[in-house]
Amino acid sequence: MILNNFASRIREIRMSRGLSQEKFALKIDMDRTYYASVESGKRNISLKNIKKIADGFEMSLEELFKDM
Amino acid sequence: MILNNFASRIREIRMSRGLSQEKFALKIDMDRTYYASVESGKRNISLKNIKKIADGFEMSLEELFKDM
Repeated sequence: MILNNFASRIREIRMSRGLSQEKFALKIDMDRTYYASVESGKRNISLKNIKKIADGFEMSLEELFKDM
Repeated sequence: MILNNFASRIREIRMSRGLSQEKFALKIDMDRTYYASVESGKRNISLKNIKKIADGFEMSLEELFKDM
């Protein structure tokens, strides 16, 4: 549940920025297939990687989890 | 850095509720030594466990990460 909610949230933000998964993963220096699996709700992502994603979106963690 | 910030944040909330680590860990059904290691910034905690902690505090993830 939470993994799927997080997946939807980051997908939505990424798409609103007009970035491909590949481009975003490259930007935050994360393995592309790892990022794809997070965005499909398949990974119980760790706090450090959540922070990496938030930083990539130039968002605070608070903003990243907004309305989730 | 992020792990230490998270550690301080949950310690502060837990103490403001007047709960011991042991009592809180028991409440959320988390191993006490695991919880203690998170609260000392030693664990790269996963999203599912972050959610468990937020639920234990009856907070949204957004609230949990407020001002962090």
